[in-house]
Amino acid sequence: MSEIITVKAPVNIAVIKYWGKRDENLILPLNDSVSGTLDTDVMCAMTSVCARPDITENEIWLNGSRTTFDNPRLKKCLGAIKSLAASQKSVSDEFLTWNVRICSENNFPTAAGLASSAAGYACLVCALAKLYKVTGDVSSIARLGSGSACRSVYGGFVQWKAGVRSDGSDSVAVQVVDSKHWPEMRVLILVVADTKKHVSSKKGMKISAETSELMQHRIKHSVPRRTVEICDAIRERDFETFAEITMKDSNQMHAVVQDSYPPSVYMTDISHRITRMIHTYNDMQGSPKVAYTFDAGPNACLYLLEENVPEVLCLVKQMFPSSSNNFVTGLPLPKKMPSKVDFPMEPFGTDLLKNVIYTKIGDGPQVVKDDHLLDQQGRPKRYV
Amino acid sequence: MSEIITVKAPVNIAVIKYWGKRDENLILPLNDSVSGTLDTDVMCAMTSVCARPDITENEIWLNGSRTTFDNPRLKKCLGAIKSLAASQKSVSDEFLTWNVRICSENNFPTAAGLASSAAGYACLVCALAKLYKVTGDVSSIARLGSGSACRSVYGGFVQWKAGVRSDGSDSVAVQVVDSKHWPEMRVLILVVADTKKHVSSKKGMKISAETSELMQHRIKHSVPRRTVEICDAIRERDFETFAEITMKDSNQMHAVVQDSYPPSVYMTDISHRITRMIHTYNDMQGSPKVAYTFDAGPNACLYLLEENVPEVLCLVKQMFPSSSNNFVTGLPLPKKMPSKVDFPMEPFGTDLLKNVIYTKIGDGPQVVKDDHLLDQQGRPKRYV
Repeated sequence: MSEIITVKAPVNIAVIKYWGKRDENLILPLNDSVSGTLDTDVMCAMTSVCARPDITENEIWLNGSRTTFDNPRLKKCLGAIKSLAASQKSVSDEFLTWNVRICSENNFPTAAGLASSAAGYACLVCALAKLYKVTGDVSSIARLGSGSACRSVYGGFVQWKAGVRSDGSDSVAVQVVDSKHWPEMRVLILVVADTKKHVSSKKGMKISAETSELMQHRIKHSVPRRTVEICDAIRERDFETFAEITMKDSNQMHAVVQDSYPPSVYMTDISHRITRMIHTYNDMQGSPKVAYTFDAGPNACLYLLEENVPEVLCLVKQMFPSSSNNFVTGLPLPKKMPSKVDFPMEPFGTDLLKNVIYTKIGDGPQVVKDDHLLDQQGRPKRYV
Repeated sequence: MSEIITVKAPVNIAVIKYWGKRDENLILPLNDSVSGTLDTDVMCAMTSVCARPDITENEIWLNGSRTTFDNPRLKKCLGAIKSLAASQKSVSDEFLTWNVRICSENNFPTAAGLASSAAGYACLVCALAKLYKVTGDVSSIARLGSGSACRSVYGGFVQWKAGVRSDGSDSVAVQVVDSKHWPEMRVLILVVADTKKHVSSKKGMKISAETSELMQHRIKHSVPRRTVEICDAIRERDFETFAEITMKDSNQMHAVVQDSYPPSVYMTDISHRITRMIHTYNDMQGSPKVAYTFDAGPNACLYLLEENVPEVLCLVKQMFPSSSNNFVTGLPLPKKMPSKVDFPMEPFGTDLLKNVIYTKIGDGPQVVKDDHLLDQQGRPKRYV
């Protein structure tokens, strides 16, 4: 019988976007991508795993209910970790015959377009790696669960190299800088009050890869140059360059989505109001102080430096008035907040945003010692 | 003293979009474009002109009020027609010294994103050409007023050749087929109830030309191929190919807009609902029966064949319920309309569309004999 292993893992927000696969089965991307890893104290996935001879079949519990293990991506991750354990002889042959029980939770709403699958698969794979005592990089195994999950395996800023090999062995994540390198960097996630169901990013990027003519230009020309430039900007802590590339690359990903047939549009009128607000604010400041980026949904992620948080938070509250008492969550709010920002636009309307999450760059997955989702007997706690 | 010349001229709706100039001054485009010319009985600009020795300065009256003649584009059009008249010796030297009075109206709202400047400048230039008795192609003069105006100089389907010469002499419109070639072709313009002010297409395309990396691919690769293919499809009356290219090219133009920095987005949530409705309808039919296209604004133009008008009009009314008694205007409605379309989407909401204009492909500018906007003495009638 194994011990209970519990890991928490971070969300990451791409600044150079992953959009399009060169291999659907191995989840190999058409282009490199770069992301910031977010603080697990604010948002994280948490996964407990154990392996026991008395578990009759592999089991997985997600956010409170048992769900099917008959999921190719899940099986691939478990299989890859067990193969690695076998080749590394890190556990006994008997241990490898036992079934596992996996119990996983996000501390934020799943499918809110907040990269929950990235955190979830990074967490699962890191927990299994610990359980099976495997060593070395596991980002390419996390990638088999969800492409962008490989970037959540490291903290700070992370580059996912697309690689060129057909077996995907060089499609791995590498750390650009660690979480201490740029300590002033902050992130505001503007969660749009939008209940529409969107086309999944999996389906959307498949349509783009098959139909968008502009995507070829993006992959061959724009992304390779931007990847080099933004990694340099991150190393040099050059916020202006970082911000401009981040916004341009988000715009370009959504341009490719619009160029697809049929188009699967993710940004909404509210998303576009946010971008107009940011461009207007940056113009007023004379240089980019805030960068927006949008994943496959309407929510905006804003990267900015700590010194600009008070004014930008005030601006967001001014332009998107909220009736919620709990509008901004996450890190403690700045002590001094302006009461009003002199701004040339009228408020957009009340309760267009559900909430704002205030967070920062953080570390990669961490082992949790004192809180598990499985009890001593390997049974899910607090579960239905 | 000259006679009063009155011309009415059509709106055109591009199916291969003009987006981006290679010369701002001469209004030379970066790529070819193709459009359908719409019936002047439904939508048109109307312009009366005269030249008289007793007019003390050039005058222009637009939609009911006098406005400044100090407009470089207007002056360029008048200057180019007068130069041509001088070189052709089509009028006397004295006539060329007289000032003109121009009076112009649209029978549809200006700046509703309905190509009013295209109709207006085509009308002005054709009226002046008649006044000064010049002969030959005047599309390149209309182009000096508003790029897409050159396409309104001909009926049917029209190609604006970008040309390569720096003086713009080969940047002219040519007719692909006349208005009788594809008599079944119909157009529905879905006017979105949207009062937001948009970035002008002039400004938007300048930003795109300066900042969009994807635009290079569009100009070099996508548009040249699509232009050949859609002209063939028009000649062969191949609606499916015509429709698919039309939708893809509209999507691509708006992708380029989204790829610009800052992005100047024209399509709204309502525009995207229209595209989803059309894709769903076409999927149900098994092949494209309707093509959407969007200019620099939220309104949709739908190209479709007459046989599909009853069902599609019914669908539009079903998905966009209206409280207006005058919701569909233009051509007489089909006699037999279905009462309901079996459709897998819920209505989007009431009064999201202002109205629908039902029209068809029509002829180029026509001289009007019996109705002028100027009286016998060259004074504006019905004006303030």
